[in-house]
Amino acid sequence: MAREHDAPTARQELLYDPAVPTPSPAERARTLSAGLTTGTLCTIAREPAGYPYGSFVTVALADGHPAFLISELAEHTRNLRADERASFLFAEPGEGDPLARGRVTLVGPCRPVAGDGRDAVRGAFLAAHPGAAYYADFKDFAFWRLEVEAVRWIGGFGRMSWVTRDEWLAAVPDPLAPHAAAILAHMNDDHRDTMLLYTHAFTKARDATSASMTGVDRYGFEMSVDTPAGARPIRLGFAQTIATPDEARRELVALAKRARDQG
Amino acid sequence: MAREHDAPTARQELLYDPAVPTPSPAERARTLSAGLTTGTLCTIAREPAGYPYGSFVTVALADGHPAFLISELAEHTRNLRADERASFLFAEPGEGDPLARGRVTLVGPCRPVAGDGRDAVRGAFLAAHPGAAYYADFKDFAFWRLEVEAVRWIGGFGRMSWVTRDEWLAAVPDPLAPHAAAILAHMNDDHRDTMLLYTHAFTKARDATSASMTGVDRYGFEMSVDTPAGARPIRLGFAQTIATPDEARRELVALAKRARDQG
Repeated sequence: MAREHDAPTARQELLYDPAVPTPSPAERARTLSAGLTTGTLCTIAREPAGYPYGSFVTVALADGHPAFLISELAEHTRNLRADERASFLFAEPGEGDPLARGRVTLVGPCRPVAGDGRDAVRGAFLAAHPGAAYYADFKDFAFWRLEVEAVRWIGGFGRMSWVTRDEWLAAVPDPLAPHAAAILAHMNDDHRDTMLLYTHAFTKARDATSASMTGVDRYGFEMSVDTPAGARPIRLGFAQTIATPDEARRELVALAKRARDQG
Repeated sequence: MAREHDAPTARQELLYDPAVPTPSPAERARTLSAGLTTGTLCTIAREPAGYPYGSFVTVALADGHPAFLISELAEHTRNLRADERASFLFAEPGEGDPLARGRVTLVGPCRPVAGDGRDAVRGAFLAAHPGAAYYADFKDFAFWRLEVEAVRWIGGFGRMSWVTRDEWLAAVPDPLAPHAAAILAHMNDDHRDTMLLYTHAFTKARDATSASMTGVDRYGFEMSVDTPAGARPIRLGFAQTIATPDEARRELVALAKRARDQG
């Protein structure tokens, strides 16, 4: 976890404690990648020689390294046979402004997987793509793995960072991510008063008139609050790192109690 | 238009006239690209030096060449300042097997747009991305254009082709594409008997028991028909190239009349 906050996009006073626990860039990158099974494989073209060449491929992360099941006949495979340098782009799908969505570029050499490592890569790939089992053993198909050396994460406008190989490999995807949409819907449907209570008790936005939850993760949650000066972002932390929707509920209830006790 | 058919994926007799008018690879590539406003820009990284680097960007086609509005601070822009070699990948979104969907890679040098060409590029880009108007004139943003030199189209499993620059630039996106889903829904909801009539009259699938439309374009339409030997693909052509849903309706009605007259 990083004890840093995202820089405000405009010159506005931050309305919450900047030391609030926040996912690190590596954690955000791993979280957005965890749910994705396709992306762009970039290789070096043979013709026109030396040009970067982007292909759409299916992917799975095997111990943090992107794994592919690709045909010898494909352009990208031929390219990799001639030059192992590669990168892979995961881009978060979604609605709204596309540049507000997250993406991660993983850079490193991409090589066929042989020997002891093959079973693990095969297992990870087929778990994500069960339908690929029927061509996994075709003679012209092979498993390949991009050995991550550098990682570029972009979280949206003005939120970006290089991530080291070690940070990337050590980071764990957020366990709350698969449940975030349901938690947000529940909070925004039924607990707007409680979120305003949090806002008045724990932030500088004492004049906020409404609050809605915009994100939740293992370390805390984010809200957008309406103030006389306009909509402003807020982040609040949980008392401990959590992993399940039940734990999120307990933290949110405890936080409401603290806010009331304080009031 | 190409007077070629797609190769059957298995060793099966083709049940329809292989000379039926069919969109060319260049037309298919232009059609799938026409609806898309994001994709992957591939550049050559400065660090790790020489690696291909994939970035998610917003895009618009300006006279067939991908145009971008990118910041000097972005990795891809810095990469392009050092090495103009680039490619751009359009990937068709959708459900189901991701490898069945279309994608196009455009390869060529990517350069800032200045002088006379800038207004056209700016116009095309802002038409596709009106929200970008507010940063289009920021000092660190500029319009860039990838000058297409080579095109790789992949239409799905086993359907792929290189397309020349001239073919790409001359091809026109299918005017029926924005209406195809509605036409398919209408035909499959209300006109299954008519499609079976077409099948019996104009194809070798005289033992087909049902038919559904799976695609429609300016030159004709595709069906999947159920036969005692399983589901099989059919393609039938229109008497003339069309451009509107009304013309599609007229062609489909005329085809039904011909089928009945023949019966």
